[in-house]
Amino acid sequence: MLQPPPAEPGMREDEVDTPALLLDLDAFEHNLDTMAALLAPTSVKLRAHAKTHKSPVIARMQMARGAIGQCVQKVAEAEALVWGGVPDVMVTNQVVGARKLARLAALAKVARVSICADDPAHVDAIEAAAEAAGVRIPVLVEIDVGAARCGVQPGPPAVALAQRIAASRHLSFGGIQAYHGSAQHIRTPEGRATAIRAASEEARRTVEQLRQQGLECPVVGGAGTGTFAHELASGVYTELQAGSYALMDADYARNEEAPPFQHALFVLATVMSAATPHIAVLDAGHKAMPTDSGYPLVWGREGVRYVGASDEHGKLTVEDPALRPRLGEKLRLVPGHCDPTVDRYDWYVGVRKGRVECLWPVAARGGMA
Amino acid sequence: MLQPPPAEPGMREDEVDTPALLLDLDAFEHNLDTMAALLAPTSVKLRAHAKTHKSPVIARMQMARGAIGQCVQKVAEAEALVWGGVPDVMVTNQVVGARKLARLAALAKVARVSICADDPAHVDAIEAAAEAAGVRIPVLVEIDVGAARCGVQPGPPAVALAQRIAASRHLSFGGIQAYHGSAQHIRTPEGRATAIRAASEEARRTVEQLRQQGLECPVVGGAGTGTFAHELASGVYTELQAGSYALMDADYARNEEAPPFQHALFVLATVMSAATPHIAVLDAGHKAMPTDSGYPLVWGREGVRYVGASDEHGKLTVEDPALRPRLGEKLRLVPGHCDPTVDRYDWYVGVRKGRVECLWPVAARGGMA
Repeated sequence: MLQPPPAEPGMREDEVDTPALLLDLDAFEHNLDTMAALLAPTSVKLRAHAKTHKSPVIARMQMARGAIGQCVQKVAEAEALVWGGVPDVMVTNQVVGARKLARLAALAKVARVSICADDPAHVDAIEAAAEAAGVRIPVLVEIDVGAARCGVQPGPPAVALAQRIAASRHLSFGGIQAYHGSAQHIRTPEGRATAIRAASEEARRTVEQLRQQGLECPVVGGAGTGTFAHELASGVYTELQAGSYALMDADYARNEEAPPFQHALFVLATVMSAATPHIAVLDAGHKAMPTDSGYPLVWGREGVRYVGASDEHGKLTVEDPALRPRLGEKLRLVPGHCDPTVDRYDWYVGVRKGRVECLWPVAARGGMA
Repeated sequence: MLQPPPAEPGMREDEVDTPALLLDLDAFEHNLDTMAALLAPTSVKLRAHAKTHKSPVIARMQMARGAIGQCVQKVAEAEALVWGGVPDVMVTNQVVGARKLARLAALAKVARVSICADDPAHVDAIEAAAEAAGVRIPVLVEIDVGAARCGVQPGPPAVALAQRIAASRHLSFGGIQAYHGSAQHIRTPEGRATAIRAASEEARRTVEQLRQQGLECPVVGGAGTGTFAHELASGVYTELQAGSYALMDADYARNEEAPPFQHALFVLATVMSAATPHIAVLDAGHKAMPTDSGYPLVWGREGVRYVGASDEHGKLTVEDPALRPRLGEKLRLVPGHCDPTVDRYDWYVGVRKGRVECLWPVAARGGMA
């Protein structure tokens, strides 16, 4: 069932219905500008990850500042972006299933769409879908650079898979995907640097071995908001895939030497019960804000802590009852993890200096396939 | 963006697109029948909680087996049920905000709609909304029986609030809400029994004090899937509000002397990568299945464990590589917590004996307000 937007342009922030997904436009634009300025003097490009923001509006704003395209994790996200005007989308993931691949191949008629593989069966299935649709699809080889999740091993196994892609009539070899997901939240800067040094070395070795077999590697993709400075400095990566940088969450802010971005994403919540002196209860629990990366921070309210989430309740505690938020008061929360939080909402409520300026649909939300 | 259903009636289960929310109809009907049989010889009624299932189809099946109505946590859920034909809905929660209360009062024109309060400000706001809409709304006093979240203290504070309700021109005193949420997942049966004994005593005392003030208490509501046998036996509670019993999740199954229901809810997922001998990666991570109550169980596959969730990936490990699920294989997962899992999907895919039998919309999903 379509949900109506919780606000209208021109409203004061405290008139917005809750829970609502707020985008602080000044902080958000600062983040987009900061990343663009960091990359402008280099030859490395941003291909921002849309699994975070799920919005073709935000995607086009990133591209207006120099991003060459977008990353997604699944076909439904690719559809929402392409239908929203994004001309170049890479699925940084494996896709299994003829129905999904047929939808992806259909998209390739109206935009540049590339995808990753880590098994010969993926390559053969993408080739069949591309042939049936009469399109040509660039396919990247995903290599495991330390996350122990998806990806073939670097070196010869990656080269063998690239050769299979290059030999497929309706595919082209698109490069290598070398994303180190678990390095993003290593807390120390030294730990992150060490992980990405190793990942970069594996990527460099694979690029060289591909070249020895006559395969040029047009793209080396990877990096996230926690580590992108290291991939940028590596001399190996050609495209950075950061997504959270635009919004920022509480968990990235917990990294030592945290990334240079401001909190732009908030969940606005209302105090719905305050029947006990040290407790206030918000209308935002773990259905409104997944807690996989910890509880949210209460923004701008010293001494108020979010200590427990149930389906529809968020429990706040205060040591000093005088600091307790009052019944009906609206508070901003900084979510622990921006990606699954955005995915819970139909609408971004863009605010600037206390006023609602715009409403943008979270077009790719809940896209399961 | 509306998502198309991931299946069609008549399909084999292994043809369903993933991730998908499966409802095993035999197990589901067993659960509905089991609860109905337990309550049939008593005077206690079921008012099943729809925050779990979010479906008017399921609500009406529960009512066909004797449930007297449904509970919800928020106005958007109440709307989805009433519009779907449910004649009696109780909001077991506080609602703050004139816009939400106006929507609730509008519903009261076409169904019986009741709501809870734990503050005089709630009562006055509901009275204003009821007056504006020209309706009469029953309001229950929520008391805190041990969960330390919402609710006034039992006894005199509850009586004072009930008197304020009874004195409001467009409200009627609906009873007391005495739900002990945190008792549901106490692991030992003794612990649950002790918690509900104390809650029942607080409810009983409050009912007596209300009567001394001339206020009859038409409803004492509470109980969940973990404790309902104790509220049923208490002689105090008149309505049980269990919701998960219909679907069951992995966390309730971890209770000692677990409730007598079968796992009926599953997430169907596909192995999308199997590049490493001891690892298989599913297309269902924490966007597909929130992990606030732990990782899912892999159904019917000894030796296969779900060990990590990221946004779009679920990582499985096996000790014996011969047991590893193969690329493209579809597996059933038992979610850790059914309520927020259901809330992620647009469609239930009802299956029986390996075939898709029906598709039901999750009509109240994502209702934020």
